Amino acid sequence: MGRWAFAKGHGTENDFVILVDRDGANPVTAEQVRWICNRRAGIGGDGILRAVRGRHIPEWDGDPEIWFMDYRNADGSIAEMCGNGIRVFVRYLVDEGLTEGPLVPVGTRAGLRETEVLSDGRIRVAMGPARVLSEQVRVSTADQQAFDAVGVDVGNPHAVSFCADPDGLDLRSAPTWEPAAVFPHGVNAEFVAERGPHRLAMRVFERGSGETRSCGTGTVAAAAAWHARHGVVATPDLAAHTTPVRYQVDVPGGSVEVELGEQAYLTGPAVIVARGELSPPT
Amino acid sequence: MGRWAFAKGHGTENDFVILVDRDGANPVTAEQVRWICNRRAGIGGDGILRAVRGRHIPEWDGDPEIWFMDYRNADGSIAEMCGNGIRVFVRYLVDEGLTEGPLVPVGTRAGLRETEVLSDGRIRVAMGPARVLSEQVRVSTADQQAFDAVGVDVGNPHAVSFCADPDGLDLRSAPTWEPAAVFPHGVNAEFVAERGPHRLAMRVFERGSGETRSCGTGTVAAAAAWHARHGVVATPDLAAHTTPVRYQVDVPGGSVEVELGEQAYLTGPAVIVARGELSPPT
Repeated sequence: MGRWAFAKGHGTENDFVILVDRDGANPVTAEQVRWICNRRAGIGGDGILRAVRGRHIPEWDGDPEIWFMDYRNADGSIAEMCGNGIRVFVRYLVDEGLTEGPLVPVGTRAGLRETEVLSDGRIRVAMGPARVLSEQVRVSTADQQAFDAVGVDVGNPHAVSFCADPDGLDLRSAPTWEPAAVFPHGVNAEFVAERGPHRLAMRVFERGSGETRSCGTGTVAAAAAWHARHGVVATPDLAAHTTPVRYQVDVPGGSVEVELGEQAYLTGPAVIVARGELSPPT
Repeated sequence: MGRWAFAKGHGTENDFVILVDRDGANPVTAEQVRWICNRRAGIGGDGILRAVRGRHIPEWDGDPEIWFMDYRNADGSIAEMCGNGIRVFVRYLVDEGLTEGPLVPVGTRAGLRETEVLSDGRIRVAMGPARVLSEQVRVSTADQQAFDAVGVDVGNPHAVSFCADPDGLDLRSAPTWEPAAVFPHGVNAEFVAERGPHRLAMRVFERGSGETRSCGTGTVAAAAAWHARHGVVATPDLAAHTTPVRYQVDVPGGSVEVELGEQAYLTGPAVIVARGELSPPT
């Protein structure tokens, strides 16, 4: 692949390597992704955000001039969307003058995503609807603590458990759930406590990754599940429940804001920490 | 600190961020080191190699024109020497034309270190003498396996255990040792098996860091301990025991070669994977 310009950035400590390939001339192989994301032998990251004009992405049939976020997991596999990654993607495009803000539409494999660069530097992303599932799910952690969880679909599956002390749980290995058939392709498991009015604390175990510092869709799922179970009935300040409903969700890597309505919006920070050139192994 | 030129590289997957500060104008604080080495919020690395001319280091009284390796651990603390780091340091200086090879003397807090860039790209470093200690030490791993270990001083303390299957050990938490007084300031624990004539496999638990992919002084300690216990008496090919004695040591991050004699030499790869500019948090 020759030498390649890159940047590294993070959103609530979910971190990414950004590669700009405007004309789609430099596709990355799974092996290259694994090398770049290797934290010791490469640069290191939870995934890669490759910026390509939409016209060069065969499966994209929208605006050909749009910036498309070709997202890859650290293991080289393709993912449709990443709620923290898209903020870093937009921050980079705007910082480099590759697009104008504050409204920045982004093409993703999950479809068009509208984003907005706010005056305080945070970025707000339309995440699509969050659907609370009706099935009852029981989640158990490695240290045998069990919770009645709320299933939520945010384009990907989540099981949200409420507990007094998420920090006390053992998330070094994967939680299990019953009935298994509810999430046949695995599930992301969130553990959530209330920290104050409309403020939640969350830890997350991501399927295929383990515990992470943050998970964008997970924070949306946490807010939606909490609101479905407690929002209308139990919270004393009913007057605050105008539309949209807002929650602050604190994760180990920082804080984000979730708005719930016909669709969910996720607002949070995005930081570019370095720019440079990669020297891949020969 | 403003924007700062950096490079990232590794030696057998012990990885470092290199900062060039020829005139000593940009000292790094412990907080800056921790940010740069943070694998999600910064670039990430096991430590920082700051390249400064010797004249700007108060404690250096040798050649003022020498490149001094100001080494910092990821937690911001100062370390005297790093056997893998110094190879990456020399690789970078030579690649950037900041010094000429093949012989590159380097100033360190452990004194002058002579290095040589070999024609195959590997770098050979004079590590000083490896002294095998006389005290008997008993090392136990987290999964309650116990070994009679050999203590070795390579400028820093090591306890080398021999076992049939290092891969089978649980090194997720720190091994313990008895008597505790032998290593009052902690010890690096190596677990070593013979893979063939003059070829060892090693895992290492570094004090203060946990299990790592490689430890330069640890490989020297492993070879010295093995040679002291098995080299002369038990190895069949006594004829091969010319001076210096050579061992290949395989670690999870790669392979290095150790030469034992009046002083030890460590030879291994060093790779620069990226160059660029940091944008520290404001």
